[in-house]
Amino acid sequence: MEEIEKANGKVLEIMNTGRAELVDFAPAGRVIEGMHENTVLHAGPPISYENMIEPMRAAIQGALVFEGKASTLEEADRLLRKNEFELVPCHEMHAVGPMAGVTTYNMYVAVVKNSAYGNSAFCNLHEGRGKVLRFGATGKDVIDRLRWMNEVLGPTLSELVRHHPVDLKSIVAEGVQMGDELHQRFRASSLLFLSRIADELLELEHGAEVFKFINEREQFFLNLSMPAMKALADAADGVKYSSIVTRMTRNGVDFGIQVSGLKGMWFTGPAEIPAGLYFPGFSTSDAARDFGDSAIMETMGLGGLSSAASPAVTRFVGGSVTDAFRITDEAYKICAGKSSTFLIPYLNFSGSPLGIDIVLVNETGILPTINTGIAHKRAGIGQIGGGISHPPLECFQEALRAFAREYGI
Amino acid sequence: MEEIEKANGKVLEIMNTGRAELVDFAPAGRVIEGMHENTVLHAGPPISYENMIEPMRAAIQGALVFEGKASTLEEADRLLRKNEFELVPCHEMHAVGPMAGVTTYNMYVAVVKNSAYGNSAFCNLHEGRGKVLRFGATGKDVIDRLRWMNEVLGPTLSELVRHHPVDLKSIVAEGVQMGDELHQRFRASSLLFLSRIADELLELEHGAEVFKFINEREQFFLNLSMPAMKALADAADGVKYSSIVTRMTRNGVDFGIQVSGLKGMWFTGPAEIPAGLYFPGFSTSDAARDFGDSAIMETMGLGGLSSAASPAVTRFVGGSVTDAFRITDEAYKICAGKSSTFLIPYLNFSGSPLGIDIVLVNETGILPTINTGIAHKRAGIGQIGGGISHPPLECFQEALRAFAREYGI
Repeated sequence: MEEIEKANGKVLEIMNTGRAELVDFAPAGRVIEGMHENTVLHAGPPISYENMIEPMRAAIQGALVFEGKASTLEEADRLLRKNEFELVPCHEMHAVGPMAGVTTYNMYVAVVKNSAYGNSAFCNLHEGRGKVLRFGATGKDVIDRLRWMNEVLGPTLSELVRHHPVDLKSIVAEGVQMGDELHQRFRASSLLFLSRIADELLELEHGAEVFKFINEREQFFLNLSMPAMKALADAADGVKYSSIVTRMTRNGVDFGIQVSGLKGMWFTGPAEIPAGLYFPGFSTSDAARDFGDSAIMETMGLGGLSSAASPAVTRFVGGSVTDAFRITDEAYKICAGKSSTFLIPYLNFSGSPLGIDIVLVNETGILPTINTGIAHKRAGIGQIGGGISHPPLECFQEALRAFAREYGI
Repeated sequence: MEEIEKANGKVLEIMNTGRAELVDFAPAGRVIEGMHENTVLHAGPPISYENMIEPMRAAIQGALVFEGKASTLEEADRLLRKNEFELVPCHEMHAVGPMAGVTTYNMYVAVVKNSAYGNSAFCNLHEGRGKVLRFGATGKDVIDRLRWMNEVLGPTLSELVRHHPVDLKSIVAEGVQMGDELHQRFRASSLLFLSRIADELLELEHGAEVFKFINEREQFFLNLSMPAMKALADAADGVKYSSIVTRMTRNGVDFGIQVSGLKGMWFTGPAEIPAGLYFPGFSTSDAARDFGDSAIMETMGLGGLSSAASPAVTRFVGGSVTDAFRITDEAYKICAGKSSTFLIPYLNFSGSPLGIDIVLVNETGILPTINTGIAHKRAGIGQIGGGISHPPLECFQEALRAFAREYGI
């Protein structure tokens, strides 16, 4: 249909011409509209506290202790069961967060501005690997680190980027040239980001300390590239007749997608247990179903869709270079176009697949491949492997039915 | 012949099992055996001052002013024409230097130890782009920068690496995973090196200043990867019956190679004017013939031989991804083996070509491709493009004749 094609062309253009400038770091409640003291943001589509998986519940409890809203995890749990807090998907407040995605009122977030379209996006800050809140770890070390991040990391980076905004899109683009697909692998992009800010950072009071924190965290750029992609995707939301996916995310129970032409509607199905490489001593029976907003990377054509840019990742999860090329080849079949910015060297600098189209997914039966960390289903154990997952086909089927109803086709 | 095959196997093993640890920075005269106050090291095979190209002569004059051996370039020129200095190829003193390669007694060099075989290699430090001594620029800014490098950069890095030696081979290997071929492109490896040393560096008195200097220089790692490869190649020198090339270098007039089984013998032919991309306003008529010891990278299978690892470089000089693969394919045909450390992601993590064999070059007529900067033939103008060059076939023909004579075959 001509209207759909035209609308999808517009969405692609918005996605391609958007900008993603890192302009500030600030407490979430100060910059995220609609957030109040009792709002708790979480990853994935909507879900009640009772239905959440354990790592996500624990992360929320830990965040409430961090906020001083409860003095113990048990107290937090009681308050949550009494519905004293408003649980909202990050995505519904222009935010994203990896894994549990838990973001509370006073927690520092990165602020990314899409200056081409005027919208902003937000993401909490990267804690590192191991015992971290986003996997449901809530020990004293975790809470202390969050405090330091709020007292030193956030304010220092805020001072820096308010004077020297950072063009995140160009770092993503350069990372793709250097073997990052930006969902599993951030080796190049994290270094590029650090190199970009280092000279000014080292002039600041806590500069060396902050430098060291970032330099030790290979995935630091995860929590910056996610809001960058969110800022680009959100600008393309709500284009009538467009069948392009603008959100893909999971909460450990459900996988949810949204479609540009069906603004605000969630289409969900059960989240998968990822397949891939498990660390020694762990297996699928230990794994949580997929969770986190990080599939925003695939929504914008990176991560699994750009496997051909990053054969090291495919190899890590047990595949070959041929598999990497195949996955990207298949992604082209379900995308309405290509990125004009993220170019894959080994495909003769072809743009990465962009604009997952629910019509094409339904026609071909091909599902987007999502590169993901595998988390333990118990709180606080953390990552137990890396692999790939897929959204359930039913999200796309349901979305297509709704699309047909909406536009009478 | 069985003896040759066995000898070449040994050379490959030495090249593959060697180590390359950055252990110190020190004035050349203090660490390079046989160097005295009037020794001047230069790139390429042996050549007299009178026969050198202008940028190399100017670089030597500038270095003598830096050393306080002459107060003007003209005075240096007079002294050089009176043979008051001993001109020695870097390669003959276990050193290497990009472009002019000029290294004098008090100039700081990097010290790289091959702890598996006990030998060391040396290289002067990276000045940056633009007006720099290695292209024959000799202005006050150039000499002042060299002084700062000697007074601050060298001593600071010395303090650092004497306590924290850096495994350069692992950085090279990781760089190859991230799109560097390590002759034109050092984007990843320079960042990886800086990231590796940063925390300790920032604790030192001039740490932030040195950090900034390195962070501004994308090719800083050139002058560290060169001695790393030199340390690996030198350990494989002098293996009787081996037909593998251990040195390839050029002085702007001649291209010279050496062969493991013919220790100390140079085989030379005219250096090429590189073909490639010229910066606006320049053409081949402005270009110097190829010069510099940087072909040590190709000698160890990187640079042009690893084009398939770095399609961005092939593209920069006017080729396509297909060309990049073809060049590496051809390199395999003239190499005795593969690297066990430097793996090319898009060739299913196959090792890069290793051990250029003069027998195979003569049999196939295929010449190794060398990625190179193109320099202006006048002193001090600097880089005017980037491209590729080849050694003249006659080096390999002459070497094969000498090899046949030496081993009576």
